[in-house]
Amino acid sequence: VPKVFFYPQNKEIEVASGENLLRAAMLAEVHINAPCGGDGTCGKCRVVIEKGTASKGLSAKLTTDEIAQGYCLACKTLIESDLVVRIPVESQLGDRRVLERELKASEKTFLASKDLKELVSSWRHEPPVKSYHFSLERPSLEDNVSDLDRLQRGLSKETGLENISADISLLRGLNEALRKGDWQVTVKVEHDEGRARLVSVTPALQKVANYGLAIDIGTTTISLELVDLDSGQVLAAASDYNAQISYGEDIISRIVYSLKSANLKRLQTLVIKTINKLIKEVLTKVEARAEDISYVVAAGNTTMAHLFLGVSPRYIREDPYIPAFSSITVEAGEVGLNLPEQVSVFLVPGRASYVGGDITAGVLGSGMFSSDKLTLYIDIGTNGEIVLGNADWLLACSCSAGSAFEGGSIKHGTRATRGAIEQVRIDPLTFEPMILTIGGTKPSGICGSGLIDTFAELFLSGLIDERGKFNLSSGTKRLRTVDSTAEYILVRATDADIARDIVITEGDLDNLMRAKAAIFAGINILLESVEMPIEAIERILIAGSFGRHIELDKAITIGLLPEIPSEKVEFVGNGSLLGSRLMLLSKEMKRKAKEVAKKMTYLELSTNSKFMDKYISALFLPHTNTNLFPGVMTQLRAHRSIVTKKVANNG
Amino acid sequence: VPKVFFYPQNKEIEVASGENLLRAAMLAEVHINAPCGGDGTCGKCRVVIEKGTASKGLSAKLTTDEIAQGYCLACKTLIESDLVVRIPVESQLGDRRVLERELKASEKTFLASKDLKELVSSWRHEPPVKSYHFSLERPSLEDNVSDLDRLQRGLSKETGLENISADISLLRGLNEALRKGDWQVTVKVEHDEGRARLVSVTPALQKVANYGLAIDIGTTTISLELVDLDSGQVLAAASDYNAQISYGEDIISRIVYSLKSANLKRLQTLVIKTINKLIKEVLTKVEARAEDISYVVAAGNTTMAHLFLGVSPRYIREDPYIPAFSSITVEAGEVGLNLPEQVSVFLVPGRASYVGGDITAGVLGSGMFSSDKLTLYIDIGTNGEIVLGNADWLLACSCSAGSAFEGGSIKHGTRATRGAIEQVRIDPLTFEPMILTIGGTKPSGICGSGLIDTFAELFLSGLIDERGKFNLSSGTKRLRTVDSTAEYILVRATDADIARDIVITEGDLDNLMRAKAAIFAGINILLESVEMPIEAIERILIAGSFGRHIELDKAITIGLLPEIPSEKVEFVGNGSLLGSRLMLLSKEMKRKAKEVAKKMTYLELSTNSKFMDKYISALFLPHTNTNLFPGVMTQLRAHRSIVTKKVANNG
Repeated sequence: VPKVFFYPQNKEIEVASGENLLRAAMLAEVHINAPCGGDGTCGKCRVVIEKGTASKGLSAKLTTDEIAQGYCLACKTLIESDLVVRIPVESQLGDRRVLERELKASEKTFLASKDLKELVSSWRHEPPVKSYHFSLERPSLEDNVSDLDRLQRGLSKETGLENISADISLLRGLNEALRKGDWQVTVKVEHDEGRARLVSVTPALQKVANYGLAIDIGTTTISLELVDLDSGQVLAAASDYNAQISYGEDIISRIVYSLKSANLKRLQTLVIKTINKLIKEVLTKVEARAEDISYVVAAGNTTMAHLFLGVSPRYIREDPYIPAFSSITVEAGEVGLNLPEQVSVFLVPGRASYVGGDITAGVLGSGMFSSDKLTLYIDIGTNGEIVLGNADWLLACSCSAGSAFEGGSIKHGTRATRGAIEQVRIDPLTFEPMILTIGGTKPSGICGSGLIDTFAELFLSGLIDERGKFNLSSGTKRLRTVDSTAEYILVRATDADIARDIVITEGDLDNLMRAKAAIFAGINILLESVEMPIEAIERILIAGSFGRHIELDKAITIGLLPEIPSEKVEFVGNGSLLGSRLMLLSKEMKRKAKEVAKKMTYLELSTNSKFMDKYISALFLPHTNTNLFPGVMTQLRAHRSIVTKKVANNG
Repeated sequence: VPKVFFYPQNKEIEVASGENLLRAAMLAEVHINAPCGGDGTCGKCRVVIEKGTASKGLSAKLTTDEIAQGYCLACKTLIESDLVVRIPVESQLGDRRVLERELKASEKTFLASKDLKELVSSWRHEPPVKSYHFSLERPSLEDNVSDLDRLQRGLSKETGLENISADISLLRGLNEALRKGDWQVTVKVEHDEGRARLVSVTPALQKVANYGLAIDIGTTTISLELVDLDSGQVLAAASDYNAQISYGEDIISRIVYSLKSANLKRLQTLVIKTINKLIKEVLTKVEARAEDISYVVAAGNTTMAHLFLGVSPRYIREDPYIPAFSSITVEAGEVGLNLPEQVSVFLVPGRASYVGGDITAGVLGSGMFSSDKLTLYIDIGTNGEIVLGNADWLLACSCSAGSAFEGGSIKHGTRATRGAIEQVRIDPLTFEPMILTIGGTKPSGICGSGLIDTFAELFLSGLIDERGKFNLSSGTKRLRTVDSTAEYILVRATDADIARDIVITEGDLDNLMRAKAAIFAGINILLESVEMPIEAIERILIAGSFGRHIELDKAITIGLLPEIPSEKVEFVGNGSLLGSRLMLLSKEMKRKAKEVAKKMTYLELSTNSKFMDKYISALFLPHTNTNLFPGVMTQLRAHRSIVTKKVANNG
């Protein structure tokens, strides 16, 4: 049996001869970037076989040089003997410490905003689970009702609630729980939507907290907060990559993979595994136990919600794009979370297959749903979900932006992880770049904000034209043509953390153009549906980790966002988590979330011919209608005139 | 590894050397009577080792002769080599065909009674689950709500019900269920106590019935009926021994065994296994599938209800005798029943640790709870549960009768199974017996009704006195003294299906005396509590399979039942099943059952000093107070005078 050794992870695994190398990596729990789900089209799962023999397959994604250096695509490679495989840094999943840093940053900004403060002060703090401490009358021959009846009698006196139901798992521990504490108990009761149920019964001497979990189930990242339901305080937070990522980076690859029921089960197991790991982490941070958790609110896009429950997302992908459900409350034990079996998990309702519970939570948590201001809420990830509206009405759509802004379909694109280029300036005279990476380490790729910067700077410097095509006459050595495709060298191999030049190709620029055009067209379609001009927008809320990093003026320069004064733009951070936290603390907010999901009018863009027109108009920098971007045009003129002047001075 | 071969079951099993033979039999699924739970005190698990060597242990329960013949107690025997073991007929668990016969017989009698007819006509036929067939609107881009929302919308139109909840298991099959039938569906909805939930969704083209199961979980026997919820018809029935029986025949042995949590789990698995087998049987009989079942009502004594759920019955046995719960509704999947996971299982509420849901169901199903007549309801098994009352009030108690009437603690006692002596007459002149067995086969033991007959006949014939002691001066060879204990030979070994004489010993008579005294004292305590004489009883209802077989006048002769005209006595059959069936068909009856359980006043007898007095008074035949049994005294005098006359004529 061949053994495969992976480094720098230092993991070894035995596999059958002929096994696919990407699959072997998954089994060894070595993550290799494979956004295409392993079909060889993305060319990102490059590894170097340093020892041993393997059938490497063919791929247009590797140059002759790279092949000579031992590079191959893991997904195309079949193992033939013992192997030593090196995972180059660009193929590794990023450092998760970056995710944690983001979470903390995102908390501060928006939480301090005036609007949110108003919102928070308006809702009633009333969590779905409350904890009660009291004494029961001791049983006797005269008073010999069952333990459960005695408890219910005591609770009814204490809370006024009748018919509090109990689950079988609770019943199994009930007799000892009552007797160990000599009939002094702590009882958690969930009371919501007219139903009351027992969550836990513990001897009073055994301290038990009343905590909740807010979970954001993202396609790429899962974030989790431990919240004290009584005080409202966030006690701990943690994030990690969704372990499903090995089976495709975007939603569509996951759906395709899930079509076999064994795969569906596997994807469910993986997301639950990631969440369980994070639960353990936050509990450890504050020295709490699973029994301290009383309630869970989880939000994710519609596909993630389906996979979380193990419900097939098959029809999300087929016209007319119907999910199996929008909202449901399940028990922790039913999905395999490492919490007391009967703890409720409320999945925040979504509006449609491509506007999920994470968006509902964001619209709720950002206060947009109760604001008088006309607000544009944008969450850009693989899809760009956009909501326009205010307290009276909400209009939502989803634009398939491709994964360009997450680094997918971009030659050296990467997620916002350590070593990712996040800021770029290009000198308009020398055309030399200045770059900053996340964590300040050697660059290994370009993340979303870096891509937007590069795109904008190339445009401002005149290295590309309005159509996003390179101006090859500029004379800089940074521009070159490889295999008849023009590309700009951002970082030379000698300065990079990878063994190649980090470049941006004309193909990459095409993908970025399409992505930004889709988002801008979406914004326009929403505005047009209500016959409003861009100027009517009183506030733009940008959600998601992508939003945290972009530079607003660069995003406007490329025409991704409409030209709007920067004071009207706010960064929400993780809107999904923000809303979920509110729902943990207020039953009213849970009800509101259901209302919000119902109230949103959803525009399906994939079949909308007007959207196509808007999209094509937006396939220009900043836009075919330059009147929409007067500021950008002024800036462009200023930029170009500096160049002209300097060149004139030097000349 | 030693192999043990059991016959006549023809089962073989490999076990470790040194393994206990009773445990080996259990593993091989060979049932051996072991009412004491395997501690060697009952002496009933006798087997014959025909080949091989084993360490047989010591037991006072076997005579020297028997030991010479190869008899040993399985529970005391350790396996040392390959063995061939014969299970003599008296040690085998009875033929279950007898159980099925009983079920059918019990159905007829009481169901034809006037009172029950009145009851049945008074309740509203409204089962907890109803089935609906309808078409859903096809989804479109304009109408793109989720499958679940669409279904709920359709159901709300069809039924008027809102907020119908769905379980995760249902959700997992929902998308295919809706699409396979082209949006024509059959939906089962449970609507009860203000809550509506989906039970199943199937494509309309796939026929699905709306059936229910009524289950009586007895300590010895489990009986089950498949009922059409729409028509009310009983479609099939089946019974079998509770597989837990190998771990103790009475409730207390089971509780003691269950104290270890692994054993608790095992007992739960066994009862579920028996029920699953019976479910398969009834479904096969009518060619139905598990999906046809929509609801389950189960009743049992309190301990059986606990073991069914895997909840420890520990405190049922300890003063002040507190059960963990009285009523609960669980899902089939939670307890392991082979039914669709989300089918509800309603456990009928009991009143106390020794007055369980089976009694509530009987009081309900027999119509006692709504009758104006002062009724005495008696269910005699290991415990005698007695309820006195009418539509206005109910008073209940439980008398620990020992297991004498079920054949326990009786040398040749056996359950009412094939070969059991069920009727006995003793000629007052010759003292020779005439016996009848169940199934008319060679006798192998004496069941409850046979014991009562024997006890009464011995008394009437003068072979025993009022204290139940043998009159050794009678001169018959049927009476003898073995090891200083007097006994009466009912069947000689040559006529028996076992290799020994079938006898009734003075010790047996003591046990019977105590059992009947406990029941009679219980009846008296209930009457005295409400200051009523025996004559005030307008009706006696006798429930349980024991009741089906006893001869009323013999039970009165020994003072087990009060002297009351036979037209006032009715045999209810399986009262537990009767009531459960009603609850399947009527939500009103389910509510009534809860009321009945709450309404019953429970008298704890174990600590009641008046009960002790009554009990001691009843340790006579028919009773110390012969005024209570004028009819018996007349009969006795008549019987004795015949003897005197005949003897005079012959003399």
